[in-house]
Amino acid sequence: MKVIVIGGVAGGMSAATRLRRLDERAEIVVLERGAHVSYANCGLPYYLGGTIEERDALLLQTPESLAARFRIDVRVRNEVVRIDRASRTVEVRDLTTGRTYEESYDRLVLSPGARPFVPDVPGIERAHTLRDVSDADRIAEALAGDVRSAVVIGGGFIGVEAAENLRERGLDVTLVELADQVLTPLDPEMAAPVADRLRTHGVRVELGAQAAKVPAGSVELTDGRSLPADLVLLSIGVRPETSLARDAGLDLGPRGGIAVDETQRTSDPDIYAVGDAAEKRDALTGESVLVPLANLANRHGRLVADAIAGREVRARAATSTAVVQVFDLTAAATGWNEKRLRAAGHPYQAIHLHPGSHAGYYPGASLIALKVLFDPRDQRILGAQAVGDDGVDKRIDVIATAMAGGLTVCDLADLELAYAPPYGSAKDPVNMAGFIAENLTNGTARTVQWHELDGAEGTLVDVRSPAEHAADAIPGAVNIPLDELRDRAAELPEGKLIVHCQVGLRGHNAQRLLTGLGREAVNLDGGYATWAAGRSATAA
Amino acid sequence: MKVIVIGGVAGGMSAATRLRRLDERAEIVVLERGAHVSYANCGLPYYLGGTIEERDALLLQTPESLAARFRIDVRVRNEVVRIDRASRTVEVRDLTTGRTYEESYDRLVLSPGARPFVPDVPGIERAHTLRDVSDADRIAEALAGDVRSAVVIGGGFIGVEAAENLRERGLDVTLVELADQVLTPLDPEMAAPVADRLRTHGVRVELGAQAAKVPAGSVELTDGRSLPADLVLLSIGVRPETSLARDAGLDLGPRGGIAVDETQRTSDPDIYAVGDAAEKRDALTGESVLVPLANLANRHGRLVADAIAGREVRARAATSTAVVQVFDLTAAATGWNEKRLRAAGHPYQAIHLHPGSHAGYYPGASLIALKVLFDPRDQRILGAQAVGDDGVDKRIDVIATAMAGGLTVCDLADLELAYAPPYGSAKDPVNMAGFIAENLTNGTARTVQWHELDGAEGTLVDVRSPAEHAADAIPGAVNIPLDELRDRAAELPEGKLIVHCQVGLRGHNAQRLLTGLGREAVNLDGGYATWAAGRSATAA
Repeated sequence: MKVIVIGGVAGGMSAATRLRRLDERAEIVVLERGAHVSYANCGLPYYLGGTIEERDALLLQTPESLAARFRIDVRVRNEVVRIDRASRTVEVRDLTTGRTYEESYDRLVLSPGARPFVPDVPGIERAHTLRDVSDADRIAEALAGDVRSAVVIGGGFIGVEAAENLRERGLDVTLVELADQVLTPLDPEMAAPVADRLRTHGVRVELGAQAAKVPAGSVELTDGRSLPADLVLLSIGVRPETSLARDAGLDLGPRGGIAVDETQRTSDPDIYAVGDAAEKRDALTGESVLVPLANLANRHGRLVADAIAGREVRARAATSTAVVQVFDLTAAATGWNEKRLRAAGHPYQAIHLHPGSHAGYYPGASLIALKVLFDPRDQRILGAQAVGDDGVDKRIDVIATAMAGGLTVCDLADLELAYAPPYGSAKDPVNMAGFIAENLTNGTARTVQWHELDGAEGTLVDVRSPAEHAADAIPGAVNIPLDELRDRAAELPEGKLIVHCQVGLRGHNAQRLLTGLGREAVNLDGGYATWAAGRSATAA
Repeated sequence: MKVIVIGGVAGGMSAATRLRRLDERAEIVVLERGAHVSYANCGLPYYLGGTIEERDALLLQTPESLAARFRIDVRVRNEVVRIDRASRTVEVRDLTTGRTYEESYDRLVLSPGARPFVPDVPGIERAHTLRDVSDADRIAEALAGDVRSAVVIGGGFIGVEAAENLRERGLDVTLVELADQVLTPLDPEMAAPVADRLRTHGVRVELGAQAAKVPAGSVELTDGRSLPADLVLLSIGVRPETSLARDAGLDLGPRGGIAVDETQRTSDPDIYAVGDAAEKRDALTGESVLVPLANLANRHGRLVADAIAGREVRARAATSTAVVQVFDLTAAATGWNEKRLRAAGHPYQAIHLHPGSHAGYYPGASLIALKVLFDPRDQRILGAQAVGDDGVDKRIDVIATAMAGGLTVCDLADLELAYAPPYGSAKDPVNMAGFIAENLTNGTARTVQWHELDGAEGTLVDVRSPAEHAADAIPGAVNIPLDELRDRAAELPEGKLIVHCQVGLRGHNAQRLLTGLGREAVNLDGGYATWAAGRSATAA
């Protein structure tokens, strides 16, 4: 059995090494057009920022180490230029010598990855992209010169990481994002703290902004402004690398990626595809999606090796979980966000909470902004997002696992999570989300969302302390502190009441109290904190 | 409706406050024999150590704050001395005035907690216990005097926390534990690093040791040794506080706690019980168990309020998840451990791995020792344990959630967990556990456990580097580095081969390679690291 793998990073190399473990006798050839294989592409921004000091740390394996350990024939700077499915051969160009040769295969694994999307803007060729070690080398070389300012075009995960790291090097950094928020996998009120944190650390964040041209030394926006930019980094997204597959007549999917079945097999039974180039099946709808994440690339690479070795395997539909560090802040998300649910017309209910990362009486606790989306018909968890200084990745991982296990949002109330004061609370943030969802589901709680407040009917009652109210109030709110509400409820005008506190907890108590007194009351979900974040997002 | 709650911490107060939110008109009386309610009992060790600086931080609520916010009649230093079920009254002694009075109820909630187990040892009355704020006050007062040495009797979670905190104050601390390991919820090879870490920080750890008497200034062990002990802290476990329930004729369960049904109702339909005093149903077997953990106490308190308010509720069976900080180390566990599975004759398979807390190329990664136990018949996850400097609580929470969701151990391979270099790896430790389990399940991997190595048939082959082998080797092992194994396999004697590396990963590759060459080979599960930890545990 001879297996050729096209692409020597993540999915491709996972397939090759796993296949060797399953089959000591297979002939395995990895063809990589770049100069490196098995490098830490997620580490590239941190190498530029200096957090990862040694370039060698990025190179997890070399062709030599892979030959020694796995007897894999790894050829870097060898580009496959054509697949001949009829003869089961590939045509390879050795980029060092220029020589072209043929290689036959019994099974072919495509892991060509994705290429950066490059907009049609004059001067854009001056912009760097950051996909591989050679890209990082070029940027590092540029940074070694007299570079004082940088513009990062694109405020997604990589763009935000790049902006942070260039800022850590002391550059004057502007992040330019076409959308009115950074990190579009998050909803706007969840992304607002990320933009704030970038600004706190001196990164200029230009939202709703678009590059018009990229002359030497600057980036000019479509609104006429010019931003200083000795260095320009472009990260507005990637497109699946499908040219080889397309030219070979393999089916592409509706999203423009390589179409694969549940065993990652393409429309040619001898050819598999994994990683950013291959389409995934969405866990919620079963539809084709593109999910350029390392976890799935590695997982599917391993799975393809199993399939080639004759095992019964089946890829799970993808939920998509991602996390990003933004200076000392963490933002993470899993599943669908509210924007996407709304656009798809999928029924959902949102909850926002701001629990402590661990017990408040133990030093170092900070608030986590946590949002959970669920289907009100069956309480299925549709997605979650979290932002905070600590414990964010843990809570998103727990919810992602709950989704994989088919737990409902109410089941989160019953999770037994590890509690000691440095790690969590007896009622963990995830449990709290379950309590809130349960209350909404059985009608105990009624909430209004931050974006529904404008023009909502009713008297707005702030149940925080007078000091909190004085510091920052929602316009038009009457202030009656929760602990006085029982005695002073008669002061409230007739009709519907909208109560709110800082994060939603006292508001819930107030809503229950007023309901118990026969009043119609709803609680502002997530309290002032979520409202203010949402407002800051929409004002930006 | 008048509801009396006996016990004003955790479960009791959760029941009282939740009930108020559900019923504005109920009369709610909380009777607490101690001087405080709603205090942070899990924070007490950290108050003694000075990490929590202010005593007030421990007092989360006061009778006054609970009256103002929830209109709950909270009476501290009021001890219920008798329950009269026929008349639905309780007899209460006001410990301040000595006055005794009666209080009627429609529903009664028992949340009396547990009391420390005190062994019958001369002088033991000199030992402090640490269950409430008054205990902490007494110890703090003692520590304000000339206290230089302390003995902590009992190496469970609280004992370890107490030892750490007393050591942090600069005391000469000895931890005395009857078992041959600390933290008995962990298996010995997982607990060994905890004892090591305590010793590294200057705590003397005496395992297999028992106090014989506690004279002034010391603790004498049964082996005749005397340990300096200006202060003695006793934490060898707790017993459910059941005297009231028993005297009232309520059914106790097989473990000596108050028997309750799935709605936390006792054998008297008007009386509920929650917290450390009530028995729980074990998630694996359905048997009655005692689980003195805050998460369940709070959860069940809330559930009882729902039940009293007429809602359909049902407590989930308990998995038991716990975590402890030991200086800069974290140890956590969920579900059953190997000792318990073996003792119960439950079929299981163990896996040990030592993945990085996050991507190795990003600074600050450390190894996590992770153990997962599963049922080889259906791959049900039975339990997990983890020890390490970072990311331990996250992985145990994820596995606890997977257990709650009914995922198999192989399903862990497919979890989409949040990955960026500071948080994890593209193949997260939990994914790795899934890969290993999958390999064991389908026969790809074959392992031998650390405790099976002695006397196991076969040639032991260390596939680590010569430098690693020279530094620390298992007696009798031949050293052939993995990258030379393919070429040098012929050097190995005939017969069965037992391969091992440092943590199990290279060993797996070696086992696959040798199997591919037609040899019979097994891999030492968890590698040298697990073997050494197990050996250190059994040698102690």
